[in-house]
Amino acid sequence: MANERIYNFSAGPSMLPLSVLETAAKEMTNFGGSGMSVMEMSHRSKTYLAIFEETKANLKKALSVPDTHEIIFMQGGATFQFSAVPLNLMGENGIADYAISGNFATVASKEAKKYGTVNIAASSEDRNHTYIPAQSALKQTAGAKYFYYCANNTIYGTEWKYVPETAAPLVCDMSSNILSKPVDVSKHGLIFAGVQKNMAPAGMAVVIIDKNLAGKELPFTPKIMSYKVAIEKDSMDNTPPCYTIYMLGLVLKWLETQGGVAGMEKLKSAKAKIIYDVLDSSALFSGCAEKDARSDMNVTFRTGDEELDAKFAKEATAAGFDNLKGHRNVGGMRASIYNAMPVEGVEKLAAFMKDFEAKNK
Amino acid sequence: MANERIYNFSAGPSMLPLSVLETAAKEMTNFGGSGMSVMEMSHRSKTYLAIFEETKANLKKALSVPDTHEIIFMQGGATFQFSAVPLNLMGENGIADYAISGNFATVASKEAKKYGTVNIAASSEDRNHTYIPAQSALKQTAGAKYFYYCANNTIYGTEWKYVPETAAPLVCDMSSNILSKPVDVSKHGLIFAGVQKNMAPAGMAVVIIDKNLAGKELPFTPKIMSYKVAIEKDSMDNTPPCYTIYMLGLVLKWLETQGGVAGMEKLKSAKAKIIYDVLDSSALFSGCAEKDARSDMNVTFRTGDEELDAKFAKEATAAGFDNLKGHRNVGGMRASIYNAMPVEGVEKLAAFMKDFEAKNK
Repeated sequence: MANERIYNFSAGPSMLPLSVLETAAKEMTNFGGSGMSVMEMSHRSKTYLAIFEETKANLKKALSVPDTHEIIFMQGGATFQFSAVPLNLMGENGIADYAISGNFATVASKEAKKYGTVNIAASSEDRNHTYIPAQSALKQTAGAKYFYYCANNTIYGTEWKYVPETAAPLVCDMSSNILSKPVDVSKHGLIFAGVQKNMAPAGMAVVIIDKNLAGKELPFTPKIMSYKVAIEKDSMDNTPPCYTIYMLGLVLKWLETQGGVAGMEKLKSAKAKIIYDVLDSSALFSGCAEKDARSDMNVTFRTGDEELDAKFAKEATAAGFDNLKGHRNVGGMRASIYNAMPVEGVEKLAAFMKDFEAKNK
Repeated sequence: MANERIYNFSAGPSMLPLSVLETAAKEMTNFGGSGMSVMEMSHRSKTYLAIFEETKANLKKALSVPDTHEIIFMQGGATFQFSAVPLNLMGENGIADYAISGNFATVASKEAKKYGTVNIAASSEDRNHTYIPAQSALKQTAGAKYFYYCANNTIYGTEWKYVPETAAPLVCDMSSNILSKPVDVSKHGLIFAGVQKNMAPAGMAVVIIDKNLAGKELPFTPKIMSYKVAIEKDSMDNTPPCYTIYMLGLVLKWLETQGGVAGMEKLKSAKAKIIYDVLDSSALFSGCAEKDARSDMNVTFRTGDEELDAKFAKEATAAGFDNLKGHRNVGGMRASIYNAMPVEGVEKLAAFMKDFEAKNK
């Protein structure tokens, strides 16, 4: 077992493609004959800037980012963005609409209250975030500076199946489903994503921002949180997380070999269906999320018996399926099946679930 | 050449010990039989938490951090701290003293002005930051919430040889000389250091804070910048830069084999002396910094002839000594010789300098 890789169903940080890790290992002490590791390169060096520009260009291509929008790399993950979004977009005495479909939108909305008025435009809290609010249920505020939603709810296993139509610029936390399917960037004023699920090791967020939205930050905005400064300095006002950007570059090259986001969309739908089919034909397991809100990234399920849930997680770990215990807010189990999870990992988990059910009738 | 590592004199990001990179490469796809890369681990997993705790404990040991102080890992580097320090320590309508001995203290003081009154307690700008202000020259403000200085000035090649005695809590940016010598942490209210010089790849800062200083942040402080939250959540309110912490852990283990910071102090003094001796016996090269302020981390020098400086940098690169061009604020050359630069790299550079002088009399 010690030399074998396991199937890691962690909600994040999570699996990376094996070929990406192998390339990183191979290039660790000497990148492309440069005589140094990417970790050791000056961020102003030609060799590093080539990596940086290629990564940015490949991300622009992968997500078909229009020229109206700029890609920024920022440290700090999504939590950093929970503050940066209102600091940059709210304005003095501003109002923003937040759709609360899970934990991280809740956390984001609490942070935004430091900087202006937050209107809860919709909430799925009444049924423990097992569903996604419908377009018709979104209560938009006149004059809101932006409308905020979280595209995929990692903890609850739900995913928005539509892009909200809103009067205000649309801000989306896409941390846990970015690069899993095509997205119409032009419909969004700002998309951000912590990279540690579908993109790279933890330590960075990607921000895709309509350039017209930058430059209106509150006066006490930390310089490192200013989208305007980040755009002007091309993410290099300070030393960027160089190696994380390099890893994102490797992941994007791998993504290209898999057919890009269109290829990923087919794959992720197929992978999720394998587990959801088990749930729908099971007498033991049931899905936690309502069917029309099910996430293709995080599959939440339970037996209805906490002891049996714990037994499942324990036996799964022993069988080489790690991190299947659900979040405490939901209980039960959660299988996070991001882009890097191979189909055979999902197939083997499905077989394990059927086997477990047969043994625990 | 393509398979050889070069001597990289970059000011940061900069060299890492080769053995550290080799270990990272070896453990890349499967850390310690866990079946996954450290990059893929949940930050809440037992395996990762063991890495985290060991790294923190080894840093505490390396710098003899007293129990009055807490170690925090934060993303964003020193620039993030330029905002976090005043946001957390300045208080409403507060005053802080800044000693301006170079570029990064200047940048930090400008950022602090967003949050309160900044008193320039001393400045070496009158002689282009070629010296360090004396203790007797420090104009402290009564009631200042903290006194800020930057221990080593990467661009100008100067280093504080004493710890300022101040009435207010002492805040130190130690980004470019941390772990190069023992430091009396108890004399400091707060020490921070971007990790990309002596500690790890870019993407994080280490903060060492007197616990009594936390909890006084301004109301609009982003949650991710709150030292109080970071202490309470042990740097895990959000997903930390897990892999960067792992790399720091590997560097700290290497440091221990080199005799810790005491061993590093002997080594860095010896390495710096090799180059300074060349400068002091040269008819061609002269050091940029005043002798009693010379940095052991960044050696700045010039020929006095810009064309000859450019020729030196170009020929040095061709000979396998990279990134020797000085910063535009100073001109000339800069050799950054952090902990991971081997003695032979410095010896070979010294020989190259002598040879260059002989050929360019």
